[in-house]
Amino acid sequence: MRRKARQATKAENRPRFWGRHAVAAALENPDRHIHRIWITREAAAQYDIPASIPVTYADGADLGRLVPRDAPHQGIVAEVERLEDILLADLLDQAEDHKPLLVLDQVTDPHNVGAILRSAAAFGALGIVTQDRHAPPESGALAKAASGALETMPWVRVVNLARALDDMAAAGFWRIGLTGEAGQTLAEALGPARVALVLGAEGEGMRQNTEAHCDALARLPISGIESLNVSNAAAVALYAASVA
Amino acid sequence: MRRKARQATKAENRPRFWGRHAVAAALENPDRHIHRIWITREAAAQYDIPASIPVTYADGADLGRLVPRDAPHQGIVAEVERLEDILLADLLDQAEDHKPLLVLDQVTDPHNVGAILRSAAAFGALGIVTQDRHAPPESGALAKAASGALETMPWVRVVNLARALDDMAAAGFWRIGLTGEAGQTLAEALGPARVALVLGAEGEGMRQNTEAHCDALARLPISGIESLNVSNAAAVALYAASVA
Repeated sequence: MRRKARQATKAENRPRFWGRHAVAAALENPDRHIHRIWITREAAAQYDIPASIPVTYADGADLGRLVPRDAPHQGIVAEVERLEDILLADLLDQAEDHKPLLVLDQVTDPHNVGAILRSAAAFGALGIVTQDRHAPPESGALAKAASGALETMPWVRVVNLARALDDMAAAGFWRIGLTGEAGQTLAEALGPARVALVLGAEGEGMRQNTEAHCDALARLPISGIESLNVSNAAAVALYAASVA
Repeated sequence: MRRKARQATKAENRPRFWGRHAVAAALENPDRHIHRIWITREAAAQYDIPASIPVTYADGADLGRLVPRDAPHQGIVAEVERLEDILLADLLDQAEDHKPLLVLDQVTDPHNVGAILRSAAAFGALGIVTQDRHAPPESGALAKAASGALETMPWVRVVNLARALDDMAAAGFWRIGLTGEAGQTLAEALGPARVALVLGAEGEGMRQNTEAHCDALARLPISGIESLNVSNAAAVALYAASVA
């Protein structure tokens, strides 16, 4: 897929990825530029690092100072360039039946977005779509939670989510917005082969204009508690779509 | 349910809960002893705090110093006593068909256990069971992730998980262990009205002796990525059991 050209990031603003899965996946992604790697001697044997990437050997405590406190770096830290943007049109060109799209409206927690990428990859989603101003940037915490899926699951950031939802409809997607207020369950709303599952932030839910751009509203069959953690809700929705 | 008597915790070891849902649920739980509350004047109007609980008014910045850095306290912090233990036998006495049990083998991350409690409440589980030495204690982060469910979802801590699994079988539970290695999917393994869903830690999975105490092994229908985040896997399993 085409990626929009982007200016190189200043070194101090580049994300640092840590942990085995996140860094191994970054190394395997031809679209990911890695500026440098810090690694322990013990961890080094597990990776095949291209000669073009500068490597610094360090001990675990030194690595600990490169990442947030208590981050489980597992002996490897990589300073990376953010991936270039993917265009929604290119993602929609690759649409296939039974590959759901996941649309996140104002989900800002990097752990949740990372876990959602991981679940999206596990359930064979086409990609995830977020609104640029209301989504977290790539970061070490997000990449760790994604467990490699940040490198493989297409993630489109759009400026205008309502317009993106229009484009999805034009590409044949049935847009189901998840909200506890809906009368029907998700299982009842599923059926069309191409679905876009739209989830809002915990607490506030989808914005009204996002909801207005859905073809159907549906709820997960829960009771006794208001809502699930948003990454848990996304996983359940992806599973429900995969068995529908 | 009976709760085992427990010695009062020294003040410096008591958990501090923060955030609206976690503290409001603690206030509503007759089994939860709250030692004191710090609250902002603005937040105070939202709560009905019994006169027996000492209240200190403070500003947001002061509250911020009582909780981990950047913890979203939402204007209220409570120093609490941990809940007393629940006996497995008492939980099993309340078993009903179509109320699954969730068994966690070595899931130690408090955010994951909290989110699992929340999902367990949402899908009407009977309770969760963990092994005492391999589960996180009650904490602010766990209570926050549970969004109130820590107060309502029975959580049994056992010394010996294998023996607990024997007790579940005796109470009529069909014990399904989730592992990526299994031949059948969870939907295929479901059927008996009383199920105990057994999940292991991410990475290592269930211990062998835990797996040996399951009646069936099953996998979630995922591909392309090794596993889901454990709280996401639990939510999917609970959903699958609820629609089976």
